[in-house]
Amino acid sequence: MDEVILPQAFNMNRALSIRSNKSKGSSGAGAGAKRPGFSFNSLRGQVQPELSRKLFRLIKSENNLISAHETAGRERVSIATQLSEWGEQTGDESISDISDKVGVILSEMGEQEDAYAHALDDSRAELKAIRNTEKSVQPSREKKDKIADEIQKLKLKEPGSTRLPVLEQELVRAEAENLVAEAQLTNTTRQKLKEAYVAEFAATIERAQKQIMLAQHGRRLLELLDDSPVVPGDTRVPYQHSSLARQILNDAEDDLRGWRPEAEGFSTPVQSQSPTLEGKGKEPLASEDNLSPVQSEAATVESGTSPLEQRG
Amino acid sequence: MDEVILPQAFNMNRALSIRSNKSKGSSGAGAGAKRPGFSFNSLRGQVQPELSRKLFRLIKSENNLISAHETAGRERVSIATQLSEWGEQTGDESISDISDKVGVILSEMGEQEDAYAHALDDSRAELKAIRNTEKSVQPSREKKDKIADEIQKLKLKEPGSTRLPVLEQELVRAEAENLVAEAQLTNTTRQKLKEAYVAEFAATIERAQKQIMLAQHGRRLLELLDDSPVVPGDTRVPYQHSSLARQILNDAEDDLRGWRPEAEGFSTPVQSQSPTLEGKGKEPLASEDNLSPVQSEAATVESGTSPLEQRG
Repeated sequence: MDEVILPQAFNMNRALSIRSNKSKGSSGAGAGAKRPGFSFNSLRGQVQPELSRKLFRLIKSENNLISAHETAGRERVSIATQLSEWGEQTGDESISDISDKVGVILSEMGEQEDAYAHALDDSRAELKAIRNTEKSVQPSREKKDKIADEIQKLKLKEPGSTRLPVLEQELVRAEAENLVAEAQLTNTTRQKLKEAYVAEFAATIERAQKQIMLAQHGRRLLELLDDSPVVPGDTRVPYQHSSLARQILNDAEDDLRGWRPEAEGFSTPVQSQSPTLEGKGKEPLASEDNLSPVQSEAATVESGTSPLEQRG
Repeated sequence: MDEVILPQAFNMNRALSIRSNKSKGSSGAGAGAKRPGFSFNSLRGQVQPELSRKLFRLIKSENNLISAHETAGRERVSIATQLSEWGEQTGDESISDISDKVGVILSEMGEQEDAYAHALDDSRAELKAIRNTEKSVQPSREKKDKIADEIQKLKLKEPGSTRLPVLEQELVRAEAENLVAEAQLTNTTRQKLKEAYVAEFAATIERAQKQIMLAQHGRRLLELLDDSPVVPGDTRVPYQHSSLARQILNDAEDDLRGWRPEAEGFSTPVQSQSPTLEGKGKEPLASEDNLSPVQSEAATVESGTSPLEQRG
């Protein structure tokens, strides 16, 4: 049991980056598309556009993570009930009362685990918004590249073709469209990535702080259990702590009810140019989901300079 | 996203006891054995003695709980790598660096989840010690009851039987043996129950405190990501935070390395008669496992008054 509480020899240096080396040297937005070899994508039988494939898989993994925490919460609640019922069956008044009340604490810890799973699910929705934008940007890139290719080939084959000026106009339009798409992509990606993990870290802290409170009160309950050994034939001192045990549960309840998230202002000073979280509008997720990525970025695009003007 | 950080309407009153009502009115050590009806126990095909059946199931549920936390840890580490590799593929230097470093934080959170699962496994071993003792006490109770029954029947059928004095001597021996067994049971049960959940709560606090540290540094990393929207054609300000991001990981590493468990002295005053945790001998689990419950209680029994003397 001592290993549990001793600080483990810890070295995060092994993981200053967790990127596997195989992908080194192939950075850049188009790197994925140039990957040689056949990639078999068996996830749900859908073949995702290359651009959104990695995030598609990550979102699937998030699903597994969420399920695991849901299962943990459910099992914890089940164990809590079983502990209480086992304690009653022992016919030992101390064990009966304390196992029941420790069970209440464990059960609430399970509820916190479940709430954490739900918060992860909200965070996952933000990643989906990035993936959807990636998905919609891919055709725009391909269209632009295809027209440029066509122009290149035509220039070699029929330099005087009347289709050339038409294609060149098409290319300008495709480039303009792609410019908008890429701006939407960078805006959505940065904003949603940040929101997703700010929310996930906040949920981690909430679960942790609440479970610490619960565990501390749980330890107080265990202190009420006299575990000094008796000799055969001796009777135990009668249990006298039921009102104190009850009070401990009340304290736990008060602590949980009094829990507030820390202010989002961070204590650590950050260099200039880093954005702050204050004043960022947070629309409800549901309504954002109904907007296509293009729609949700429309305001940004419209308020800015027209892409065509910039190119002129 | 606002729901995540707002305190939930919380009422632990629904759970001042988590005992289901069906078992009310049937308390006492023998209650389980008197349960009417057929109980089909399909767990691993083993039929457990009635006394240890509830704990046997609880220990199975603990297994599911441990697996769930292991899965959560594994998925978390996998997501961390995927996030980093996705970030690299975006070709955006800010996202690439921050996703990689947030990935390192997430990966370490996953390791903490896995360490928690292992700590739960240690705690589960303590519950097994109780279950094993329960299992070994059951035959002793049954033997005593069987002899008493036999005497009762014989007294009605053949009051002058010469087997009666023999059976009565056997009963005294069986009662003495059972007295020892019951003392072993109460000693093991209280001690191991307390150890199991003290360890479990300590592990909960350790995971929580470490994950809070990690999440806080994770939020600092996210602050370095400029998510102000750009208009199409604009270029982002070049990423300038790589050394600060590196420093944040160093800080996280230092915090984790500096983590120490709280002292086990509890701050809350507890009424007299409650046992303290100081000075309790903690043998390594492995060697305890090799001792049968009877052996491990031998010292207690031998140092006490002989059960036979007490009955005389």
